[in-house]
Amino acid sequence: MSTPAGRPRHRVNRVPDRADYELETVGTILDATTVCHVAVVDDRGFPVVLPTLHARDGATLYLHGSSASRLFRTAARREVCVSATTVDGLVLARSVFHHSVNYRSVVLFGEPEAIEDEDGKREALRAFTEKLIPGRWEDAREPAAQELKATAVLRMPIDEATAKVRTGGAVDEPEDYELPIWAGTIPLRTVAGEPIPDDRQLDGLDEPGYVAEYRRARS
Amino acid sequence: MSTPAGRPRHRVNRVPDRADYELETVGTILDATTVCHVAVVDDRGFPVVLPTLHARDGATLYLHGSSASRLFRTAARREVCVSATTVDGLVLARSVFHHSVNYRSVVLFGEPEAIEDEDGKREALRAFTEKLIPGRWEDAREPAAQELKATAVLRMPIDEATAKVRTGGAVDEPEDYELPIWAGTIPLRTVAGEPIPDDRQLDGLDEPGYVAEYRRARS
Repeated sequence: MSTPAGRPRHRVNRVPDRADYELETVGTILDATTVCHVAVVDDRGFPVVLPTLHARDGATLYLHGSSASRLFRTAARREVCVSATTVDGLVLARSVFHHSVNYRSVVLFGEPEAIEDEDGKREALRAFTEKLIPGRWEDAREPAAQELKATAVLRMPIDEATAKVRTGGAVDEPEDYELPIWAGTIPLRTVAGEPIPDDRQLDGLDEPGYVAEYRRARS
Repeated sequence: MSTPAGRPRHRVNRVPDRADYELETVGTILDATTVCHVAVVDDRGFPVVLPTLHARDGATLYLHGSSASRLFRTAARREVCVSATTVDGLVLARSVFHHSVNYRSVVLFGEPEAIEDEDGKREALRAFTEKLIPGRWEDAREPAAQELKATAVLRMPIDEATAKVRTGGAVDEPEDYELPIWAGTIPLRTVAGEPIPDDRQLDGLDEPGYVAEYRRARS
């Protein structure tokens, strides 16, 4: 992917075959992770990294936060680095040294811009809501003008990004395969529990179909 | 917690009652998260954030990586910011604006040092291994001298840290409670699947008790 002039090219150096620069892989990982971590250099030159919600629309990344958040006051029109990671399993090798985790991770670089117009913010909020749980946007009350005003959303192109993925089992030293030590992987996944209806739920409201569907996909 | 001279104090500004500066809370969140995200300012002044494994020993944080990793060449003896986050549920409010997630998050600041001595590295690897899956250290082959040499571990005191936690249900605008819109939370948790024994497992090796125990705790 392209690198704007003046920005250092960031590539994954360590294990090149775990890196993937294609938008599809990067996008799939962004879609699969609920939060990302956004790093900026603050006014005094110190690194700051904070978690935030993200969403994606094609090759555009949205970063969500309140207008009051220090990160968002700092990050707009500044270089940021964004990383999102999901852990898919533990890898137990015969040797301590080769213990690892299976994971999918993406790192993006860019200079986000604050979305200022109402329509742009509404589109971003739709992306956030539908990413959280598909189907919700049509059901929930849409944002009012003053709510859009109070919402800070950053937008940046996904044009400098790397993905790293580790899958599979343990890789041990040749001589260690003879050791009587159990080795293998323990898959990890996120599951959804029984929904907890709001205390002040109106009587007679059924759980929406998209909630049931979300749970089925994460059971 | 203390702030070294010259380092800007980073506090959670936005929702002060979600912030907790105590080591116990910070430590519990670090222990509950498999990976953290480490941010540094690179040689050209750009932010870089990468995921890495971490472990904790009391008020000491260990950060793990290969000697070949650019991050670790950069991060030693430099200011870093570390964040670890776990998402505990989706919060579906009646209004789009008040949708949220329940989460536990920690942000730490510090200047890590590389551990150079074998004993220190061994202790750190013990912490990583036992954090990954308690009981494993006694079972796996211990690191050899050349493996310790190839292991880069950073160590930093947990003395400037903030925790943020969101729990509970949706908080809607007063007038929205009358809307016929389902609201509630969907809990999320990480579960462990059926272990996948290594292809080259020796015959007759039973799955260790700590693997079964790990799965029971995450079923």
